[in-house]
This record gives sequence, structure tokens and C-alpha cells, in this order.
Amino acid sequence: MSLIVQKFGGTSVGTVERIQAVADKVASFREQGHDVVVAVSAMSGETNRLIDLAQRITSQPSAREMDVLVSTGEQVTIALLCIALENKGVPARSYTGSQVKILTDSAHTKARIKHIDNSAIQADLAADKVVVVAGFQGVNEEGDITTLGRGGSDTTAVALAAALNAAECQIYTDVDGVYTTDPRVVEGARRLDKITFEEMLEMASLGSKVLQIRAVEFAGKYSVPLRVLSSFAEGSGTLITFDEGDKSMERPAVSGIAFTRDEAKLTILGVPDVPGVASKVLGPISEGNVEVDVIVQNVAEDGSTDITFTVHRNEAEKAEQILRKTAKEMNAREVIADAHIAKVSIIGVGMRSHAGIAAKMFQTFADNNINIQLITTSEIKISVVIEEKYIELAVRTLHSAFDLDVDDGQK
Amino acid sequence: MSLIVQKFGGTSVGTVERIQAVADKVASFREQGHDVVVAVSAMSGETNRLIDLAQRITSQPSAREMDVLVSTGEQVTIALLCIALENKGVPARSYTGSQVKILTDSAHTKARIKHIDNSAIQADLAADKVVVVAGFQGVNEEGDITTLGRGGSDTTAVALAAALNAAECQIYTDVDGVYTTDPRVVEGARRLDKITFEEMLEMASLGSKVLQIRAVEFAGKYSVPLRVLSSFAEGSGTLITFDEGDKSMERPAVSGIAFTRDEAKLTILGVPDVPGVASKVLGPISEGNVEVDVIVQNVAEDGSTDITFTVHRNEAEKAEQILRKTAKEMNAREVIADAHIAKVSIIGVGMRSHAGIAAKMFQTFADNNINIQLITTSEIKISVVIEEKYIELAVRTLHSAFDLDVDDGQK
Repeated sequence: MSLIVQKFGGTSVGTVERIQAVADKVASFREQGHDVVVAVSAMSGETNRLIDLAQRITSQPSAREMDVLVSTGEQVTIALLCIALENKGVPARSYTGSQVKILTDSAHTKARIKHIDNSAIQADLAADKVVVVAGFQGVNEEGDITTLGRGGSDTTAVALAAALNAAECQIYTDVDGVYTTDPRVVEGARRLDKITFEEMLEMASLGSKVLQIRAVEFAGKYSVPLRVLSSFAEGSGTLITFDEGDKSMERPAVSGIAFTRDEAKLTILGVPDVPGVASKVLGPISEGNVEVDVIVQNVAEDGSTDITFTVHRNEAEKAEQILRKTAKEMNAREVIADAHIAKVSIIGVGMRSHAGIAAKMFQTFADNNINIQLITTSEIKISVVIEEKYIELAVRTLHSAFDLDVDDGQK
Repeated sequence: MSLIVQKFGGTSVGTVERIQAVADKVASFREQGHDVVVAVSAMSGETNRLIDLAQRITSQPSAREMDVLVSTGEQVTIALLCIALENKGVPARSYTGSQVKILTDSAHTKARIKHIDNSAIQADLAADKVVVVAGFQGVNEEGDITTLGRGGSDTTAVALAAALNAAECQIYTDVDGVYTTDPRVVEGARRLDKITFEEMLEMASLGSKVLQIRAVEFAGKYSVPLRVLSSFAEGSGTLITFDEGDKSMERPAVSGIAFTRDEAKLTILGVPDVPGVASKVLGPISEGNVEVDVIVQNVAEDGSTDITFTVHRNEAEKAEQILRKTAKEMNAREVIADAHIAKVSIIGVGMRSHAGIAAKMFQTFADNNINIQLITTSEIKISVVIEEKYIELAVRTLHSAFDLDVDDGQK
């Protein structure tokens, strides 16, 4: 008998019938002898409905009141799930974030969890109750309702698992696990039984939308074993472990291929190559609240330098305006913007012990006549920026080159 | 400059546009130099939508979870109203019942207010903010969300007015005040500028649905001046005073005519007339949780007695079953049930100093060939039970007989 924290997202609780199905699932874990704490999101569509009500009044509603407004979404779900559980004879008790209490800072709409009081939940578990907690929300020191930002329910679940020292945190979603790459692009994409936190972090940050990156970081920090499963299908999903374990076993060099089309590339050419030039170019971008992803700097032969970086495509225009202003001030030669790019990455802790991974990746691109525009590497990841139109070709050929296809035998 | 508590019901906040109109109204009072505290209901239809979600799971959801569920309705409204106020440049701050905090007992779905902490609200008013409080809800000693039952938002408003020692509690609704009787039945029905609490209590309990009786009682207990006004029309509404005031002025004998079709009549005939018989007959009814309204007992010539009473029509069948069982045990002669009755009442504190009011009422019935089945009287009210089909005729002729018609000159 162990304690499991389960998180069900908006789609999983999108209708009364689905909430009853969740109650069945929770009840079956309880029958197996587990203690269960459940974190839930708002019913799908509800958060958007609430935001729309506010937007019809003003495009800039106060963040404090937005949190009061949207936090009602999860509150509805916790009540309905408890009603469904009790209707099946399972004693249950609901908690809002404020009731738990999940103490956060005061950054409304994007608050961070500071502490979770587990005393009430522990008492309920001791009394053999299922505890149902509203995800995504908390309360600050002043008693104001806060929310953790979109996807914050994953973070709530992981934080609860950490605070309660749970055996496992199960994230139920509409996919049945983490795949070697997007199955819509590569038919042979395989579900991974296990993935390390580091790999998952890279996958999540690169557009594998299974889990919020923040929740993964949180799980890693507190060593909470995370499992991603489907609400709608049976199966054991993908376990995300902080234990790199199997070191003696043959590990594949690459665990997965991630990619994103959400970025745009900006280049400033012919800047004088003096110390502090990167900061002069990128400082104003960051001050404009634009997040920069890949950054590459080359020194040209004439002693000037070029700096290239990528930003989210939605912010490309804003970033370009800032960059053109900087270019004028710095007397740079030219600014080039390109929204038609994509980024593809190979990820795997196995890279650490395998040589020639980068070479194989570049050879695959060369074999397929795909021109590489930018390269960045980390210890467990190599990312490459290419022309957008080549993205499917790149992902498919890499997936095959690194023996990830399902026909090549299970991991 | 004085403190006003304003309450807006579900219809008044039924759409985003109406919430903005409420914000305008609040803003205009504030511009006149008043401090304003607002209590709001859920947007019309919202509470029923939430109840329906729960009912689709089970017809008997837990009361605790129902309170968690339906209390989200007012929480949405407080956030939207604050957003609308701030959008008009009026600083505002929302509070759930739990945040205020409005401490109640633990009788979920029909909790009673025990105490209101006014410190946070006072601080906000001192900081020149409009305070918006979720009506209908509170929190018990354990931190569980409670609700006050349907119409509880009126009670919240009055309780806030009492706790804050407000100059006036304004209840905005879809009618523009309290009328001498239902304008849909009597064309000449007049809006009253003033009515006493005692009169209002009788009007409310007899089916004048303008205000919850509980709110009126509460207002009387704490001497809070209550005003009923329309959200949609201009006008000063009806002031409900605890001051009988104007004693020197000519007061009409009767202030209003109330009536209800919601009752049914039950009679037990030929019960032995011994001490304790009323308790034997009515005790089981009350134990069956059926509320009894009018009770009349007559002693017949043969030493037996008849007891007649009325109950809510929805509970007539249940009451009849209980009564038949009692009749068998007591060896009574007969039980008669009649759902086709109506009750009409004349109400007025002026009755105290006017003779002949009852006689005039009965004469009016006689003139119109309306047979009186039951009569009960209190100091400021005479109620008569008649056959249902005569109800409109009775109300119209009484309204005219007691000089309440609008053409007879303003009060």
C-alpha cells in the first residue's frame, strides 16, 4: 500500500460522464489498497469561457481578479469529482488551493508555490478518504487567491506528491505516454517505457507538449517519480525517473527527436567585435520581455561580428523592431529576420558515453540535402535550425538513423 | 458621506453588459461621496447550471460538496464586477465569503451567519476602494465553504450592513419596490414609499417575493434600514423602516394585500376533545419535517373536536399520509384534504388603532359571495383561507375596499 498522487487534466474531466470515469479509475486504485490524492484541472473549455467573460469587459483585467475568476473552474471540478466518488461509495473530500493551503508568492496569474501544508490531507488519508485538490491555484500570505499559470495543475500534482512524499505522481492526459517523436510525423514513433528527467526536460522545452516543463523541473528537484498515462486507454504509460539507473545496460545513444516550428531567427550583421557586444544586442531584447532561445555568435574576418538568435514566432516582429533600433545605434551593417525556420533536436543521456552522435546527425542532414543554419549543443542534446520546409524530412530520417523506429526492435 | 451596502441579484448581473451597468450605478453613488460595499449573487442561470451538473451524477449529492460547487457562481460575479469597476477607474477589491470572513454554522446549503469580520473591508474603504463581496456564502469554523440557501445574498447584504453599521442597505431587484398588492392581479396596485418591518415580514412570508423573509428579520434585529429598488429603472423604491415614525400622521388602516396559492388544507374531524390533542395531531406532521402554517381548532357540540391546518402544497400528500395514520390511531372520524385553496391577508400596522377592519374585510367577502373557510389574525394581519378560484376577486375587491387603489389618491 502506497500513496499515489493522480492528476487529471481538462479533457479528462471535460464532461460529467468523464468525471465519473475518473472516479472509477480512482476507486480502482483505492481498491488495490493505495491511498489516493487527486489534483484536477477545470473542465475543458471552462477556463477559456471565464477569460472570455473578462475580456468582454476589458482587454487588461486586473491580475488579482482574474485569479478569483478563473480559479472557480477547478473548484467546480473538485466538487463534482467528490460527488461522483461518494456516489460510488468512496469517501472523499475536496480542497481548494486556499483550503489546503497551497501557499504561493503574490505573482498573480503566474504564482510560484512556496509551501504546502499537508496536515489536513494527511488526516483525511488516515481517515481513509480520497482527497481531491483543485489544481492550478493557491493562496498568498494575504489570503488572496493566486493561480500558477496555464498547465499549473501538473505543478500542483507534483508539489503535492513532494509534500506528501508520494510513491508516484501520475499525470493522466490524452496521450498514452512520451514518444520517441511526434507520431503524427513519424509513423514508426515508439512510446518510451522510461525516460530520464533530463531528457524529459529537453523534450518538454522543445515542444513535446505532454507535460509542463515547470512540473518536470519540480519533480526533478524533489525526486518525485512522474508517470504520464492516458485517461482514456489502459497501459502503464511512460515513467520519468530521476534515477539514470540502467547504467550497465546498453542504452541507446538517442532517446527521442523533438522539434518546433514556433521560432523565428534574427541576425545582426557587421557589429564591431568588442567586449560586451552580445549584451548590447541582447539586453534590449530581454528588457522588452522577449525570451531568446538559441544564440550563436561568429567572428568575421574583417574583425566585425555577427550575432544570430531565435525567439518565439509570436514575438519576432517586436524583437525585430528592437534589434533594428540597436543596429542603428551600433552602426551595424544589416538586420535579417527569418520566420520560416524550424528547430530539430536529438536528445539522450546516452550521448554522454557515445562518440560520433553529432557527426551522424550532420551526415544525415547532408545525405538529404538539408542545409544547417545554426547548431547548438548541450550535454544531452544537439539542436539544429533548418529551413522550415525540411522539418518532416529531417525528423523522419533522424528517427530512422538513430534506430528509434518501432520495427527496429524495442528498446 | 455615508456607507451604503448594495445588493444586486442574479438578474441584475445576468450578463457582462448588466454587470457593467451595475458598475456604473456603484460608481455614481461613489461620486456622490458615499462609501459603497456591494454584495452580489451568481449570474442568473449559473446556480441552476451548477446544480444540474451535480444532479446528473446523483440526486443526492453531499451538502458539503454542493456548497463548494455552487459558491463558484458568486465568485465569478465578484471578479467580473471588480474588473468592470476598475475599468471605469474605480478601485475595487473582491472577497469570497471565506475571505471576508463571513463565519457561519456548519449547516451546509442552509447555513446561518454567526459573525462577520469587518476589519479587511474597513481597511479597504479607508483606502477609498469599493468592496465587492460574494453573497450567499460563508465559511465555517473548520474552513469549509458554506452557503446560506437560496436568496441568501439578501441576507449577506443585510448582515454586512449590520456589521459595518451602514446607513442603508439597498436591495436591487427586478421590481421597483414593494406594492400594495401584486400589480399583475390588481391594475391599481401602488408602490409604497415606506413600509414597516413588521408589515414587510408579513408581506414577505405571505408570498410577496421581493425580499427573503430571513433578510427582513435580520434587518429588523439589527435595525438596518432596507430599501428595495429596481436595477433597471430609476426611482427611490420602497424604504423598509424599523421606525414606525409618522404616528402623528394619518396612516391608512391597511398597507397591503398579500396572497398565496401555495398552500393546501387538511382537516381531521371527530377527534376526542382531550388535553394534548393538538400536539398528538400536529406532532407527527412536524416530525415528518412538514411545516404547518395556519392552524384552527373547533370544538363540536358532541364533545369531539376538529382540527384544520394548512401546509405547503408540495408537501400536502406527505402530510395527508401522516395525518391518516394519526387519525386511525386516534380513532378520528374523517380526514379531508383540499389543495384548491388560497390564502389572502390584509396587513397594516394601522390596524392597531383602527376598529372595524376585520368586519370590513368579512363584509367585502360577503358582498362578493366568497365563502370563508378559515380565519386567523395577528396584531397587524388578518388572513383568510378561501376557495382558490375566488382569489383574484378577493384581492381586487379588498384592495379597493381599503382605499389602496392608485386612483384613490397617493398615500
